[in-house]
Amino acid sequence: MADYIEPISKLAEQFGRLAGIGRKTALRLAFSVLDMSEEEAEGFAEAIMDAKHKIHLCPICQNLTDKEICDVCADTSRDRSTICVVEDAKAVLALEKVREFRGLYHVLGGVISPMNGVTPEKLKIKELLLRCEDSEVSEIIIATNPTVEGEATAMYLSRLLKPLGIAVTRLAYGVPVGGDLEYADEVTLYRAIEGRRDVQ
Amino acid sequence: MADYIEPISKLAEQFGRLAGIGRKTALRLAFSVLDMSEEEAEGFAEAIMDAKHKIHLCPICQNLTDKEICDVCADTSRDRSTICVVEDAKAVLALEKVREFRGLYHVLGGVISPMNGVTPEKLKIKELLLRCEDSEVSEIIIATNPTVEGEATAMYLSRLLKPLGIAVTRLAYGVPVGGDLEYADEVTLYRAIEGRRDVQ
Repeated sequence: MADYIEPISKLAEQFGRLAGIGRKTALRLAFSVLDMSEEEAEGFAEAIMDAKHKIHLCPICQNLTDKEICDVCADTSRDRSTICVVEDAKAVLALEKVREFRGLYHVLGGVISPMNGVTPEKLKIKELLLRCEDSEVSEIIIATNPTVEGEATAMYLSRLLKPLGIAVTRLAYGVPVGGDLEYADEVTLYRAIEGRRDVQ
Repeated sequence: MADYIEPISKLAEQFGRLAGIGRKTALRLAFSVLDMSEEEAEGFAEAIMDAKHKIHLCPICQNLTDKEICDVCADTSRDRSTICVVEDAKAVLALEKVREFRGLYHVLGGVISPMNGVTPEKLKIKELLLRCEDSEVSEIIIATNPTVEGEATAMYLSRLLKPLGIAVTRLAYGVPVGGDLEYADEVTLYRAIEGRRDVQ
Protein backbone atom coordinates (compact mmCIF):
# COMPACT_ATOMS: atom_id res chain seq x y z
CA MET A 1 0.00 0.00 0.00
CA ALA A 2 1.30 3.45 -0.87
CA ASP A 3 2.02 5.56 2.21
CA TYR A 4 -0.79 7.96 1.50
CA ILE A 5 -3.79 8.05 -0.77
CA GLU A 6 -2.73 10.05 -3.82
CA PRO A 7 -5.15 13.02 -3.73
CA ILE A 8 -4.34 13.50 -0.04
CA SER A 9 -0.58 13.40 -0.54
CA LYS A 10 -0.88 15.79 -3.48
CA LEU A 11 -2.88 18.24 -1.38
CA ALA A 12 -0.42 17.88 1.50
CA GLU A 13 2.41 18.63 -0.95
CA GLN A 14 0.62 21.84 -1.93
CA PHE A 15 0.23 22.91 1.69
CA GLY A 16 3.89 22.06 2.25
CA ARG A 17 4.88 24.74 -0.27
CA LEU A 18 3.45 27.49 1.91
CA ALA A 19 5.82 29.46 4.13
CA GLY A 20 6.57 27.77 7.44
CA ILE A 21 4.49 24.64 6.85
CA GLY A 22 6.35 21.37 7.45
CA ARG A 23 5.48 17.86 6.28
CA LYS A 24 3.42 16.91 9.34
CA THR A 25 1.44 20.14 9.46
CA ALA A 26 0.81 19.89 5.71
CA LEU A 27 -0.73 16.46 6.18
CA ARG A 28 -2.85 17.68 9.09
CA LEU A 29 -4.13 20.58 6.96
CA ALA A 30 -4.91 18.20 4.07
CA PHE A 31 -7.03 16.06 6.40
CA SER A 32 -8.65 19.24 7.64
CA VAL A 33 -9.81 19.98 4.09
CA LEU A 34 -11.37 16.51 3.87
CA ASP A 35 -13.41 17.32 6.98
CA MET A 36 -14.91 20.34 5.20
CA SER A 37 -18.21 20.16 3.35
CA GLU A 38 -18.17 20.28 -0.47
CA GLU A 39 -19.25 23.95 -0.43
CA GLU A 40 -16.60 24.93 2.09
CA ALA A 41 -13.87 23.29 0.01
CA GLU A 42 -15.18 25.06 -3.09
CA GLY A 43 -15.15 28.36 -1.21
CA PHE A 44 -11.55 27.71 -0.19
CA ALA A 45 -10.41 26.90 -3.74
CA GLU A 46 -12.26 29.97 -5.04
CA ALA A 47 -10.68 32.24 -2.42
CA ILE A 48 -7.23 31.11 -3.60
CA MET A 49 -7.97 31.86 -7.25
CA ASP A 50 -9.75 35.11 -6.33
CA ALA A 51 -6.78 36.36 -4.35
CA LYS A 52 -4.44 35.47 -7.23
CA HIS A 53 -6.62 37.11 -9.91
CA LYS A 54 -7.78 40.25 -8.12
CA ILE A 55 -4.63 41.28 -6.26
CA HIS A 56 -1.93 43.26 -8.06
CA LEU A 57 0.60 45.94 -7.15
CA CYS A 58 -0.51 49.55 -6.69
CA PRO A 59 1.20 51.48 -9.53
CA ILE A 60 2.24 54.22 -7.06
CA CYS A 61 3.41 52.58 -3.82
CA GLN A 62 3.85 48.97 -5.07
CA ASN A 63 1.68 47.68 -2.22
CA LEU A 64 -0.81 44.87 -2.86
CA THR A 65 -4.30 46.04 -3.78
CA ASP A 66 -7.47 44.85 -5.48
CA LYS A 67 -8.31 48.35 -6.74
CA GLU A 68 -6.68 50.44 -9.47
CA ILE A 69 -4.78 52.48 -6.87
CA CYS A 70 -4.44 51.27 -3.25
CA ASP A 71 -6.56 52.79 -0.47
CA VAL A 72 -3.65 54.63 1.13
CA CYS A 73 -2.51 56.29 -2.09
CA ALA A 74 -6.13 57.13 -3.01
CA ASP A 75 -6.82 58.72 0.40
CA THR A 76 -6.54 62.48 -0.20
CA SER A 77 -6.48 63.20 3.55
CA ARG A 78 -3.03 61.61 3.96
CA ASP A 79 0.19 63.57 4.21
CA ARG A 80 1.88 63.34 0.81
CA SER A 81 5.18 64.80 2.01
CA THR A 82 6.28 61.70 3.97
CA ILE A 83 6.90 58.25 2.52
CA CYS A 84 7.53 55.24 4.74
CA VAL A 85 9.65 52.63 2.93
CA VAL A 86 8.95 49.03 3.97
CA GLU A 87 10.01 45.57 2.82
CA ASP A 88 6.63 44.03 2.12
CA ALA A 89 2.86 44.41 2.30
CA LYS A 90 2.76 42.78 5.74
CA ALA A 91 4.80 45.65 7.17
CA VAL A 92 2.23 48.13 5.79
CA LEU A 93 -0.55 46.22 7.59
CA ALA A 94 1.45 46.25 10.84
CA LEU A 95 2.09 50.01 10.63
CA GLU A 96 -1.50 50.82 9.60
CA LYS A 97 -2.77 49.05 12.72
CA VAL A 98 -0.96 51.64 14.87
CA ARG A 99 -3.05 54.41 13.25
CA GLU A 100 -0.26 56.88 13.99
CA PHE A 101 1.46 57.28 10.64
CA ARG A 102 -0.56 59.45 8.23
CA GLY A 103 1.88 59.60 5.32
CA LEU A 104 2.22 57.30 2.32
CA TYR A 105 4.09 54.02 1.90
CA HIS A 106 6.49 52.51 -0.56
CA VAL A 107 6.87 48.73 -0.70
CA LEU A 108 10.31 47.57 -1.87
CA GLY A 109 9.27 43.97 -2.38
CA GLY A 110 12.24 42.62 -0.42
CA VAL A 111 15.68 43.70 0.80
CA ILE A 112 19.07 43.76 -0.87
CA SER A 113 20.60 40.33 -0.33
CA PRO A 114 23.38 39.38 -2.76
CA MET A 115 23.54 35.89 -1.17
CA ASN A 116 19.99 35.24 -2.37
CA GLY A 117 20.52 36.97 -5.68
CA VAL A 118 18.49 40.03 -4.72
CA THR A 119 20.29 43.03 -6.21
CA PRO A 120 18.98 46.63 -5.87
CA GLU A 121 17.64 46.40 -9.45
CA LYS A 122 15.22 43.67 -8.37
CA LEU A 123 13.58 45.92 -5.77
CA LYS A 124 11.19 48.81 -6.41
CA ILE A 125 13.91 51.42 -5.78
CA LYS A 126 13.63 53.00 -9.23
CA GLU A 127 9.93 53.62 -8.54
CA LEU A 128 10.81 55.20 -5.18
CA LEU A 129 13.30 57.59 -6.78
CA LEU A 130 10.66 58.58 -9.36
CA ARG A 131 8.26 59.43 -6.52
CA CYS A 132 10.97 61.47 -4.78
CA GLU A 133 11.38 63.66 -7.84
CA ASP A 134 7.96 65.00 -6.91
CA SER A 135 8.78 68.18 -4.97
CA GLU A 136 6.06 67.40 -2.40
CA VAL A 137 8.15 64.66 -0.73
CA SER A 138 10.25 66.02 2.14
CA GLU A 139 10.93 62.98 4.35
CA ILE A 140 11.58 59.29 3.76
CA ILE A 141 11.21 57.04 6.82
CA ILE A 142 13.10 53.80 6.20
CA ALA A 143 11.26 51.03 8.02
CA THR A 144 13.01 47.92 6.73
CA ASN A 145 13.32 45.12 9.30
CA PRO A 146 16.19 45.40 11.85
CA THR A 147 18.15 42.57 10.20
CA VAL A 148 21.54 42.66 8.49
CA GLU A 149 19.89 42.86 5.06
CA GLY A 150 17.34 45.40 6.25
CA GLU A 151 20.16 47.59 7.60
CA ALA A 152 22.19 47.30 4.41
CA THR A 153 19.15 48.26 2.35
CA ALA A 154 18.49 51.24 4.64
CA MET A 155 22.12 52.41 4.17
CA TYR A 156 21.88 51.98 0.40
CA LEU A 157 18.63 53.96 0.19
CA SER A 158 19.96 56.68 2.50
CA ARG A 159 22.96 57.25 0.22
CA LEU A 160 20.70 57.47 -2.82
CA LEU A 161 18.15 59.80 -1.24
CA LYS A 162 20.18 62.26 0.80
CA PRO A 163 21.78 63.93 -2.26
CA LEU A 164 18.23 64.72 -3.44
CA GLY A 165 17.84 67.00 -0.43
CA ILE A 166 15.27 64.78 1.26
CA ALA A 167 15.37 64.08 5.02
CA VAL A 168 16.00 60.34 5.53
CA THR A 169 15.04 58.84 8.91
CA ARG A 170 15.03 55.33 10.37
CA LEU A 171 12.64 53.74 12.91
CA ALA A 172 13.95 53.87 16.50
CA TYR A 173 15.71 50.83 17.94
CA GLY A 174 15.33 49.83 21.57
CA VAL A 175 13.81 47.41 24.03
CA PRO A 176 10.29 46.39 22.99
CA VAL A 177 7.45 47.69 25.18
CA GLY A 178 6.34 45.04 27.65
CA GLY A 179 9.61 43.18 27.14
CA ASP A 180 12.06 42.18 29.86
CA LEU A 181 15.61 43.60 29.90
CA GLU A 182 16.82 40.19 31.03
CA TYR A 183 15.81 38.68 27.70
CA ALA A 184 16.90 41.52 25.42
CA ASP A 185 19.99 40.72 23.32
CA GLU A 186 23.17 42.79 23.66
CA VAL A 187 22.80 44.61 20.34
CA THR A 188 19.28 45.73 21.19
CA LEU A 189 20.36 46.87 24.66
CA TYR A 190 23.32 48.73 23.18
CA ARG A 191 21.00 50.51 20.74
CA ALA A 192 18.56 51.26 23.56
CA ILE A 193 21.31 52.91 25.62
CA GLU A 194 22.73 54.75 22.62
CA GLY A 195 19.28 56.08 21.69
CA ARG A 196 18.27 57.07 25.24
CA ARG A 197 16.07 60.14 25.56
CA ASP A 198 15.36 62.76 28.21
CA VAL A 199 12.49 61.85 30.47
CA GLN A 200 9.63 64.19 29.60
CA MET B 1 -8.90 52.05 5.00
CA ALA B 2 -10.12 48.55 5.77
CA ASP B 3 -7.62 46.52 7.80
CA TYR B 4 -6.91 44.14 4.97
CA ILE B 5 -7.53 44.01 1.27
CA GLU B 6 -10.70 41.99 0.83
CA PRO B 7 -9.49 39.01 -1.26
CA ILE B 8 -6.57 38.57 1.16
CA SER B 9 -8.72 38.68 4.28
CA LYS B 10 -11.18 36.24 2.68
CA LEU B 11 -8.38 33.82 1.87
CA ALA B 12 -6.92 34.21 5.38
CA GLU B 13 -10.38 33.46 6.78
CA GLN B 14 -10.43 30.23 4.76
CA PHE B 15 -7.01 29.21 6.06
CA GLY B 16 -8.18 30.07 9.58
CA ARG B 17 -10.87 27.38 9.32
CA LEU B 18 -8.25 24.65 9.08
CA ALA B 19 -7.34 22.72 12.22
CA GLY B 20 -4.74 24.43 14.37
CA ILE B 21 -4.33 27.55 12.23
CA GLY B 22 -4.66 30.81 14.14
CA ARG B 23 -5.35 34.31 12.81
CA LYS B 24 -1.69 35.28 12.35
CA THR B 25 -0.66 32.05 10.66
CA ALA B 26 -3.72 32.25 8.39
CA LEU B 27 -2.62 35.69 7.21
CA ARG B 28 0.94 34.47 6.66
CA LEU B 29 -0.36 31.56 4.56
CA ALA B 30 -2.60 33.89 2.54
CA PHE B 31 0.42 36.06 1.69
CA SER B 32 2.29 32.88 0.83
CA VAL B 33 -0.34 32.11 -1.81
CA LEU B 34 0.14 35.58 -3.32
CA ASP B 35 3.84 34.77 -3.71
CA MET B 36 2.96 31.74 -5.84
CA SER B 37 2.80 31.88 -9.62
CA GLU B 38 -0.61 31.72 -11.30
CA GLU B 39 -0.04 28.04 -12.22
CA GLU B 40 1.00 27.09 -8.70
CA ALA B 41 -2.11 28.73 -7.23
CA GLU B 42 -4.25 26.92 -9.79
CA GLY B 43 -2.58 23.64 -8.86
CA PHE B 44 -3.31 24.32 -5.21
CA ALA B 45 -6.99 25.10 -5.83
CA GLU B 46 -7.30 22.01 -8.02
CA ALA B 47 -5.66 19.78 -5.39
CA ILE B 48 -8.29 20.92 -2.88
CA MET B 49 -11.21 20.12 -5.18
CA ASP B 50 -9.56 16.87 -6.31
CA ALA B 51 -9.15 15.65 -2.76
CA LYS B 52 -12.77 16.53 -1.99
CA HIS B 53 -14.17 14.85 -5.12
CA LYS B 54 -12.04 11.73 -5.30
CA ILE B 55 -11.83 10.73 -1.65
CA HIS B 56 -14.66 8.77 -0.04
CA LEU B 57 -15.02 6.11 2.66
CA CYS B 58 -14.11 2.49 1.93
CA PRO B 59 -17.43 0.57 2.21
CA ILE B 60 -15.72 -2.15 4.28
CA CYS B 61 -13.36 -0.48 6.78
CA GLN B 62 -14.65 3.14 6.54
CA ASN B 63 -11.13 4.41 5.91
CA LEU B 64 -10.56 7.20 3.36
CA THR B 65 -9.78 5.98 -0.15
CA ASP B 66 -9.84 7.14 -3.76
CA LYS B 67 -10.58 3.60 -5.03
CA GLU B 68 -13.77 1.52 -4.81
CA ILE B 69 -12.33 -0.49 -1.91
CA CYS B 70 -9.27 0.74 0.03
CA ASP B 71 -5.82 -0.80 -0.57
CA VAL B 72 -5.73 -2.60 2.79
CA CYS B 73 -9.13 -4.24 2.34
CA ALA B 74 -8.31 -5.14 -1.29
CA ASP B 75 -4.97 -6.74 -0.34
CA THR B 76 -5.65 -10.50 -0.30
CA SER B 77 -2.34 -11.20 1.46
CA ARG B 78 -3.54 -9.58 4.68
CA ASP B 79 -4.81 -11.49 7.69
CA ARG B 80 -8.59 -11.25 7.66
CA SER B 81 -9.02 -12.66 11.17
CA THR B 82 -7.75 -9.56 12.98
CA ILE B 83 -9.31 -6.09 12.84
CA CYS B 84 -7.61 -3.08 14.37
CA VAL B 85 -10.18 -0.45 15.41
CA VAL B 86 -8.94 3.15 15.19
CA GLU B 87 -10.43 6.62 15.59
CA ASP B 88 -9.51 8.12 12.25
CA ALA B 89 -7.63 7.71 8.96
CA LYS B 90 -4.51 9.35 10.43
CA ALA B 91 -4.19 6.50 12.92
CA VAL B 92 -4.25 3.99 10.04
CA LEU B 93 -1.38 5.88 8.37
CA ALA B 94 0.61 5.88 11.62
CA LEU B 95 0.12 2.12 12.14
CA GLU B 96 0.83 1.28 8.49
CA LYS B 97 4.18 3.04 8.75
CA VAL B 98 5.27 0.48 11.37
CA ARG B 99 4.77 -2.34 8.79
CA GLU B 100 4.16 -4.77 11.65
CA PHE B 101 0.39 -5.17 11.66
CA ARG B 102 -0.84 -7.38 8.81
CA GLY B 103 -4.55 -7.50 9.66
CA LEU B 104 -7.37 -5.21 8.57
CA TYR B 105 -8.57 -1.90 10.01
CA HIS B 106 -11.86 -0.37 11.01
CA VAL B 107 -12.13 3.41 11.23
CA LEU B 108 -14.74 4.60 13.74
CA GLY B 109 -14.71 8.20 12.54
CA GLY B 110 -14.31 9.57 16.07
CA VAL B 111 -14.80 8.53 19.70
CA ILE B 112 -17.83 8.51 21.96
CA SER B 113 -18.04 11.96 23.52
CA PRO B 114 -21.46 12.95 24.89
CA MET B 115 -20.09 16.44 25.71
CA ASN B 116 -19.55 17.05 21.99
CA GLY B 117 -22.75 15.31 20.98
CA VAL B 118 -20.98 12.21 19.64
CA THR B 119 -23.14 9.24 20.59
CA PRO B 120 -22.25 5.64 19.64
CA GLU B 121 -24.82 5.82 16.81
CA LYS B 122 -22.75 8.54 15.11
CA LEU B 123 -19.68 6.29 14.87
CA LYS B 124 -19.18 3.36 12.48
CA ILE B 125 -19.88 0.80 15.22
CA LYS B 126 -22.83 -0.82 13.42
CA GLU B 127 -20.53 -1.47 10.46
CA LEU B 128 -17.93 -3.03 12.78
CA LEU B 129 -20.50 -5.40 14.30
CA LEU B 130 -21.61 -6.43 10.79
CA ARG B 131 -18.00 -7.30 9.96
CA CYS B 132 -17.68 -9.28 13.19
CA GLU B 133 -20.59 -11.50 12.20
CA ASP B 134 -18.21 -12.89 9.60
CA SER B 135 -16.87 -16.03 11.28
CA GLU B 136 -13.32 -15.29 10.00
CA VAL B 137 -12.80 -12.51 12.57
CA SER B 138 -11.20 -13.82 15.78
CA GLU B 139 -9.53 -10.77 17.33
CA ILE B 140 -10.34 -7.09 17.58
CA ILE B 141 -7.45 -4.82 18.61
CA ILE B 142 -8.85 -1.57 19.98
CA ALA B 143 -6.38 1.19 19.13
CA THR B 144 -8.31 4.33 20.06
CA ASN B 145 -6.15 7.12 21.49
CA PRO B 146 -5.20 6.88 25.19
CA THR B 147 -7.55 9.73 26.16
CA VAL B 148 -10.62 9.67 28.40
CA GLU B 149 -12.92 9.45 25.38
CA GLY B 150 -10.70 6.87 23.67
CA GLU B 151 -10.79 4.73 26.83
CA ALA B 152 -14.56 5.03 27.18
CA THR B 153 -15.01 4.02 23.55
CA ALA B 154 -12.69 1.05 24.05
CA MET B 155 -14.75 -0.09 27.06
CA TYR B 156 -18.00 0.34 25.14
CA LEU B 157 -16.73 -1.70 22.18
CA SER B 158 -15.26 -4.37 24.43
CA ARG B 159 -18.67 -4.92 26.08
CA LEU B 160 -20.36 -5.19 22.71
CA LEU B 161 -17.80 -7.52 21.16
CA LYS B 162 -16.89 -9.96 23.95
CA PRO B 163 -20.35 -11.61 24.01
CA LEU B 164 -19.81 -12.45 20.32
CA GLY B 165 -16.94 -14.74 21.37
CA ILE B 166 -14.25 -12.53 19.82
CA ALA B 167 -10.95 -11.81 21.61
CA VAL B 168 -10.78 -8.07 22.34
CA THR B 169 -7.33 -6.55 23.00
CA ARG B 170 -6.00 -3.04 23.61
CA LEU B 171 -2.67 -1.47 22.62
CA ALA B 172 -0.05 -1.59 25.42
CA TYR B 173 0.45 1.48 27.60
CA GLY B 174 3.86 2.48 28.89
CA VAL B 175 6.73 4.90 28.63
CA PRO B 176 7.41 5.89 25.02
CA VAL B 177 10.65 4.58 23.50
CA GLY B 178 13.35 7.26 23.63
CA GLY B 179 11.39 9.11 26.30
CA ASP B 180 12.70 10.13 29.71
CA LEU B 181 11.14 8.75 32.91
CA GLU B 182 11.60 12.17 34.45
CA TYR B 183 9.09 13.65 32.05
CA ALA B 184 6.57 10.82 32.00
CA ASP B 185 3.29 11.65 33.79
CA GLU B 186 2.14 9.60 36.78
CA VAL B 187 -0.64 7.75 34.95
CA THR B 188 1.72 6.62 32.20
CA LEU B 189 4.31 5.49 34.75
CA TYR B 190 1.65 3.65 36.74
CA ARG B 191 0.52 1.85 33.57
CA ALA B 192 4.14 1.09 32.68
CA ILE B 193 4.73 -0.55 36.10
CA GLU B 194 1.42 -2.36 35.99
CA GLY B 195 2.14 -3.71 32.50
CA ARG B 196 5.77 -4.71 33.22
CA ARG B 197 7.05 -7.79 31.43
CA ASP B 198 9.74 -10.43 32.02
CA VAL B 199 13.04 -9.48 30.50
CA GLN B 200 13.55 -11.83 27.53
